[in-house]
Amino acid sequence: MDEDLPANRLSSIRIVLVRTSHPGNIGSAARAMKNMGIRSLALVAPKRFPDPEAEALASGADDVLAAARVFDTLPEAIGDCVAAYALSARMREWGPENLAVREAAPAALSDASGGPVAFVFGNEASGLTNDELLACQCHVRIPTDPAWSSLNLSQAVQVVAYELRMAATAGAMSSGRPEPLATVADLEALYAHLEQVSMESGFLDPANPGRLRDRWRRLFARARPEREEVNIIRGLIRALLKRRDASGE
Amino acid sequence: MDEDLPANRLSSIRIVLVRTSHPGNIGSAARAMKNMGIRSLALVAPKRFPDPEAEALASGADDVLAAARVFDTLPEAIGDCVAAYALSARMREWGPENLAVREAAPAALSDASGGPVAFVFGNEASGLTNDELLACQCHVRIPTDPAWSSLNLSQAVQVVAYELRMAATAGAMSSGRPEPLATVADLEALYAHLEQVSMESGFLDPANPGRLRDRWRRLFARARPEREEVNIIRGLIRALLKRRDASGE
Repeated sequence: MDEDLPANRLSSIRIVLVRTSHPGNIGSAARAMKNMGIRSLALVAPKRFPDPEAEALASGADDVLAAARVFDTLPEAIGDCVAAYALSARMREWGPENLAVREAAPAALSDASGGPVAFVFGNEASGLTNDELLACQCHVRIPTDPAWSSLNLSQAVQVVAYELRMAATAGAMSSGRPEPLATVADLEALYAHLEQVSMESGFLDPANPGRLRDRWRRLFARARPEREEVNIIRGLIRALLKRRDASGE
Repeated sequence: MDEDLPANRLSSIRIVLVRTSHPGNIGSAARAMKNMGIRSLALVAPKRFPDPEAEALASGADDVLAAARVFDTLPEAIGDCVAAYALSARMREWGPENLAVREAAPAALSDASGGPVAFVFGNEASGLTNDELLACQCHVRIPTDPAWSSLNLSQAVQVVAYELRMAATAGAMSSGRPEPLATVADLEALYAHLEQVSMESGFLDPANPGRLRDRWRRLFARARPEREEVNIIRGLIRALLKRRDASGE
């Protein structure tokens, strides 16, 4: 049913920001969410909210901010969720199942067929506590340079929201090649034409052709030309030859 | 060889920020790059740089900022690159090949076996001009909610850097492109040569050029030619012209 398309399940995703220090990060996170089609924001004990800085950085996502719900504790913010995914760069000796965000996104959308699903982000400096991490069902990592693993909070929200959108819309993108492509026959005619003028002009010695023929094929195989592009190349060659005949008369 | 591991190719990726208005975005972009193991930053005509706000938002990525190179124009910033990928949310009726960032990342790393590869980001408000977009070989989109497609600049850099890291660490990739690729400057010389002979031969009416120039760019952007292939095309053109001149005498 249309109502259960994975893309629609983005409406079941809730971004939960825990003990956020900088209101600008809340605004930037709201913008990042809205760009990817995620609208539900929950804030656990934010240091300053509402705040003009959050509104400034939300850019046009003030509707997401206005609808944000504020909770005192994480369990209250995720109590109605069917799953909660905790973001943490730190590996813990003991904790929930550990997934990279690319694996976590489709799993979360699958969960979302059953109800709301939370992605939980900790404080900018201290992250999530062990208790908070254990309140979630899954520990999600964003792969980084191991020597430099601390993403800005709103950047982490952006990557998660992006992966959720990619998982929700997998395969729904068009190729961007609306014009008719050259057929194999068009290409063979082009190669024959190139070979003919290469010999005629002395550019190719028929006794020693080298790899010139193969090179044309490799080049145009990579280009996957449109029919009109092949016509243009052949037209230019003809124009060059016609001019030659004209000046030869 | 170890030296050509895809992860090492991240060192061939250059992030190019064009006419950036807010120095804070330059700092945030530097942090996003460093998180993902990308260190090379080029700035084209930044409004304010260096700037304390950039340093504040770079957090620990001040080394990336300190090493950033500043250019007056985009062609200078990408002239030595074997490929340039332009980020733009706007679909253009006419432009280079269009890829989602998930497809562009492995393609760029493959290109990077041949030399530096640029990812080019426009001004926060106005994006890239059509000329800037056409100076690049590929148009990259970050999939978003179509109704709300404008990511913050540093968030866009974060998603691109993340996808590059994911592609670089997704296991072995070999490009199958052992020969030296044409640089952006090689391609510009080819376009100039094609335009000159198109006019000289009467194939292109200078008063009514149509879209011929753009078509050459699109075709060869898709082909990502080797340097030797560019030499062959230009050699054939020269052979045709020489033959023409000879028969004219």
